Amino acid sequence: MPGFATDQLLQGLSVDCVIFGFHQNELKVLLLKLKQLDMWALPGGFVGVTEDVDQAATRVLSERTGLEDIFLQQFFLFGDASRHRAGHGARLAELGAIPAEWADWLDRRFVTLGYYALVEYSRVKAPKPDQTSESCEWCALNALPKLMLDHSEILTKAHDTLKKHLNDQPIGLNLLPAQFTMPELQALYETVLGTTLDRRNFQRKMLGYGILNRTGKRMTGAPHKAPWLYEFDEEKYRLALQAGLNTGW
Amino acid sequence: MPGFATDQLLQGLSVDCVIFGFHQNELKVLLLKLKQLDMWALPGGFVGVTEDVDQAATRVLSERTGLEDIFLQQFFLFGDASRHRAGHGARLAELGAIPAEWADWLDRRFVTLGYYALVEYSRVKAPKPDQTSESCEWCALNALPKLMLDHSEILTKAHDTLKKHLNDQPIGLNLLPAQFTMPELQALYETVLGTTLDRRNFQRKMLGYGILNRTGKRMTGAPHKAPWLYEFDEEKYRLALQAGLNTGW
Repeated sequence: MPGFATDQLLQGLSVDCVIFGFHQNELKVLLLKLKQLDMWALPGGFVGVTEDVDQAATRVLSERTGLEDIFLQQFFLFGDASRHRAGHGARLAELGAIPAEWADWLDRRFVTLGYYALVEYSRVKAPKPDQTSESCEWCALNALPKLMLDHSEILTKAHDTLKKHLNDQPIGLNLLPAQFTMPELQALYETVLGTTLDRRNFQRKMLGYGILNRTGKRMTGAPHKAPWLYEFDEEKYRLALQAGLNTGW
Repeated sequence: MPGFATDQLLQGLSVDCVIFGFHQNELKVLLLKLKQLDMWALPGGFVGVTEDVDQAATRVLSERTGLEDIFLQQFFLFGDASRHRAGHGARLAELGAIPAEWADWLDRRFVTLGYYALVEYSRVKAPKPDQTSESCEWCALNALPKLMLDHSEILTKAHDTLKKHLNDQPIGLNLLPAQFTMPELQALYETVLGTTLDRRNFQRKMLGYGILNRTGKRMTGAPHKAPWLYEFDEEKYRLALQAGLNTGW
């Protein structure tokens, strides 16, 4: 929501961020509880007239979480005419959820650009609500509260996109410790995919991508046959983000 | 460009379509030659106030090519503030490229949603220019004319995205005859990727995806050891478009 005058914002365009949080094999999503309403929303905002759209999304992420340098990815523009709910702004103003002077502006048709990010949620000290919300919390994906407008559809599409991107994009950097075991990496994939995976296939496929270095050390404190510790080869990881993992044509 | 009054269009949002054409192992792109200017543009347009954004892109594709039911894919929203060129509309009007009454409206900042499509270009009888262009032609990717604004960047990103999508998405349906040989399919991939591929690896990988049926027939008119004819399993092909090809986790 605007922290500045609406005439300093692009009309009809918003950004919505689906911020997935991973911690100890749990996947959550960051949501805002709206003021005066039994309703939640994705963290979102508008775009300043001299601001890049991608910058606006980065600003929203940073304002809510305090995190910088997070890999934030555009995934879809939600642009159906049926998104428009005439009177939405007026209703929010009436309930005191937004200042009255925003009502007309918000009553216009908006298209929204969806972004997703995946962060280690224990690194986020205290998620901050915005002007129209009373709290900002990590919610479990399997027990979501009621979301406003089409935010539930946006969230589902973000999760589907994240799962699909696992086919061809690396994840794990900034989510796992700098050194991690293959079972830890597998648990991350299993959590995001919501399924269990075959240990041998997983290891063969991951090693085949060539983005992991085996450190030569084993996990300490583990019993006999402790698993090897790996780390990402950050340069190869970044290349794979750009070109994809399956470039074996 | 609008075929209707600008007050019936969403402000500040356009769509641009990168329509790749494939025919006999050549890849081209459909471009419009602007009136009164030694400059070309991607086929694009604006979004009606009651029109879905995806519909607007489909309309642009159909108006230029006459084709329906084409797989058209959103790939990126170009939303940098630096896209805005003050006076762009006024200059176009002065040159007679657009009606004078569009100038102010076009002088505002626009974000544009990029779509790409890949079509068999011999199926397009006569590409049609729009109101602001004098011709609409297939241009070779390696000999592009000068493009307006950031259209050259949009085109490059579309091609990069298409190449990346080959890692995890099928192509070929509606581009090849209903039955085709493995060398024909490989030639399509080589043309899009702009590289040559190893025959054995290609065949192994393609068959591994499980989206091809071998018809049991060999190409006729070919000499001894004629190659097998294949066809797409359309249901598996569509599933792979949704879920990705590398779902082997």
